[in-house]
Amino acid sequence: MIYVTRKAHFNAAHRLQNPEKPDEWNARTFGKCNYPNWHGHNYIIEVTVAGEPDPETGYVVDLGTLKKVIEERVLEPCDHRNLNLDVPFLQGIIPTSENLVYAFYQQLKSPVEAISSKGSVLYSVKLFETERNIAEYCPFRTIENI
Amino acid sequence: MIYVTRKAHFNAAHRLQNPEKPDEWNARTFGKCNYPNWHGHNYIIEVTVAGEPDPETGYVVDLGTLKKVIEERVLEPCDHRNLNLDVPFLQGIIPTSENLVYAFYQQLKSPVEAISSKGSVLYSVKLFETERNIAEYCPFRTIENI
Amino acid sequence: MIYVTRKAHFNAAHRLQNPEKPDEWNARTFGKCNYPNWHGHNYIIEVTVAGEPDPETGYVVDLGTLKKVIEERVLEPCDHRNLNLDVPFLQGIIPTSENLVYAFYQQLKSPVEAISSKGSVLYSVKLFETERNIAEYCPFRTIENI
Amino acid sequence: MIYVTRKAHFNAAHRLQNPEKPDEWNARTFGKCNYPNWHGHNYIIEVTVAGEPDPETGYVVDLGTLKKVIEERVLEPCDHRNLNLDVPFLQGIIPTSENLVYAFYQQLKSPVEAISSKGSVLYSVKLFETERNIAEYCPFRTIENI
Amino acid sequence: MIYVTRKAHFNAAHRLQNPEKPDEWNARTFGKCNYPNWHGHNYIIEVTVAGEPDPETGYVVDLGTLKKVIEERVLEPCDHRNLNLDVPFLQGIIPTSENLVYAFYQQLKSPVEAISSKGSVLYSVKLFETERNIAEYCPFRTIENI
Amino acid sequence: MIYVTRKAHFNAAHRLQNPEKPDEWNARTFGKCNYPNWHGHNYIIEVTVAGEPDPETGYVVDLGTLKKVIEERVLEPCDHRNLNLDVPFLQGIIPTSENLVYAFYQQLKSPVEAISSKGSVLYSVKLFETERNIAEYCPFRTIENI
Repeated sequence: MIYVTRKAHFNAAHRLQNPEKPDEWNARTFGKCNYPNWHGHNYIIEVTVAGEPDPETGYVVDLGTLKKVIEERVLEPCDHRNLNLDVPFLQGIIPTSENLVYAFYQQLKSPVEAISSKGSVLYSVKLFETERNIAEYCPFRTIENI
Repeated sequence: MIYVTRKAHFNAAHRLQNPEKPDEWNARTFGKCNYPNWHGHNYIIEVTVAGEPDPETGYVVDLGTLKKVIEERVLEPCDHRNLNLDVPFLQGIIPTSENLVYAFYQQLKSPVEAISSKGSVLYSVKLFETERNIAEYCPFRTIENI
Repeated sequence: MIYVTRKAHFNAAHRLQNPEKPDEWNARTFGKCNYPNWHGHNYIIEVTVAGEPDPETGYVVDLGTLKKVIEERVLEPCDHRNLNLDVPFLQGIIPTSENLVYAFYQQLKSPVEAISSKGSVLYSVKLFETERNIAEYCPFRTIENI
Repeated sequence: MIYVTRKAHFNAAHRLQNPEKPDEWNARTFGKCNYPNWHGHNYIIEVTVAGEPDPETGYVVDLGTLKKVIEERVLEPCDHRNLNLDVPFLQGIIPTSENLVYAFYQQLKSPVEAISSKGSVLYSVKLFETERNIAEYCPFRTIENI
Repeated sequence: MIYVTRKAHFNAAHRLQNPEKPDEWNARTFGKCNYPNWHGHNYIIEVTVAGEPDPETGYVVDLGTLKKVIEERVLEPCDHRNLNLDVPFLQGIIPTSENLVYAFYQQLKSPVEAISSKGSVLYSVKLFETERNIAEYCPFRTIENI
Repeated sequence: MIYVTRKAHFNAAHRLQNPEKPDEWNARTFGKCNYPNWHGHNYIIEVTVAGEPDPETGYVVDLGTLKKVIEERVLEPCDHRNLNLDVPFLQGIIPTSENLVYAFYQQLKSPVEAISSKGSVLYSVKLFETERNIAEYCPFRTIENI
């Protein structure tokens, strides 16, 4: 099993706010991430596919094609946009990194697996909100030893 | 002459828009940087002081004190804020990186020189809007050979 | 299952030395890492929590709170300190990166899980001694196929 | 179980080309990676060993010794070389990152495990072709939940 | 005076060889950089323009337009190419980083100044051959104090 | 004029302490950098030579030879050492980054210029104590406009 990763970047505005809660709860819970006039990030997204290389090409996935799928499914709707207001597939969720990686995984799963070698899966999506704050969604790792 | 640099980070939203021009001019000139609902960046700022080390401390400037001045003069007003709407000293300017480094330099010059060794100057302020887009203001370099 | 990571930095001195062995064994085994007058590193620590986002906040863990726990439990006792001499919870161990990540994991497990969403676990602690030398402790991955 | 990683660099030329296919297929499949006069990369390799620290040294593996094994088994044959023409253990494979990590893992497995603590395994080999294109081979992770 | 920098990447093969010298001189002078079957790098180029921001746009230069000029004048002829064989404007020079930055500066000077604000100059071109080996050409700095 | 830079790394322990001042002054002035049992850093040094490329080699300086000079003159005496106690050419100075870059410049000037092309000068030495704290010594830049 080989794991292939493609990294991409986008810049977006957001604000953490649960609309079902009073303003005071939001300010206390999210602190400066709740400031009303938005802030933003240079997001880095890492998309990882797991599979066997195709014997004719040596590719699990053509990274040029994967780049285009990431651009189409994530960067085009999100880059230079407001994640709370502008992105159809993010409506109704609080744009924490945790919720974003899950939403990006759903956006990417079918089109990424369609361009990958037979039997490959979209293994994980990782998002760097800043160099120090990172979230990842991976449905294939299990926490067994608890 | 020794050059001492301190790096800091902040996250902010902005939008490029010249309010004296029609919307159509702004959209054409600034492209996706003009999108109405803002976008944002993880800004990195580098502040450089030039001077002679103090003989008692070996410091041109105590970088812990310089860190606090940068926090007070730039990060506190800008971090998690909207650079077009929220920052008093940025009112009336288009928040391009070029204009930001000049404004940050003015914010920092007096307090930085006040904490530096005798004869030191604030040499330059550099801003990374993204890893690939960078601006710097330095009043001490000259373009002589043109 | 979402994985959330927070990165932090500290600077410390150390020396590799097994006090139960003769000096000659230590010099031969640890080479320049055994030099008597210490050396040091800019350590980078990455702490990863695995869990489900809380539906009200969208957080597996508030990264600002996680930052404070890392500061209190690891950075405060270790930053600008000597790992062989100054840190109570490192007494009696040789401060290799392998032993440090295990000790940091024990320091962090309870307080990190106490601030994380229901059912979350401290998934792993990773330490960069240099950009090229890295250790990680993760009790949840298993080596099954051997 | 502790995971210890050592990073190394090498520079090499390559070209993606399946010699059993016509030129036209190769040009269409590999695009600019198929250009006839070669191109090249600053490859970064990360080698990870999993095991228990030796109680006398606190090491899963001495990273100085691991560095030498990586130099001998991967860097010496590959650095400043042409991966299609010059490297005996890469003959007959298309030098995609996927195929390279698998070949490097085979090169490294025995000598790395021979220098590691009792019971340790070569856990994975990861290769950065560019900062954005990454492949990893790890025989110990399984994709169970499909 | 504001300095604006745009960073870009390309991958290329090359070999250091002075065709007017015997093979033995080349092997002794350039070592592994002279190996006959080429090697290659992930080059990073940084292009810096110095000037005054245009008062209407706040730009010394539109970095999106600068990106296109770098792509057209440097990346298109060089990316995934052999710098000794494939690039018309590099014919007859040994492709050391020193010679490359000078050649890239000549390629970029007119078109970059044509898209920049009135009075701006192409200040410097910097090239990272590896993370550790860097060259820069800047005709505006002088070494006066010798 | 071309500027060529080589980057290198070393790990060392140090402590900021002016032995001519009372302990209380040192503790107040240097804070945690004055802790008695040392701390340490992964230092990065950047050495820049300015000159004209030699027409036969295209080199301002052979970076492999420059690497060896840096190793001999800076890394060998400093790596894995205590900068206050172990390094002959640092005796009697407080090892701030400001004082270190000046001392390293003196160590490197003659041997670096001896291996560089005719007329070249050691232009600057830059030191990263951490990613955020940086000092540089360059005797060729002047602060004219004050």
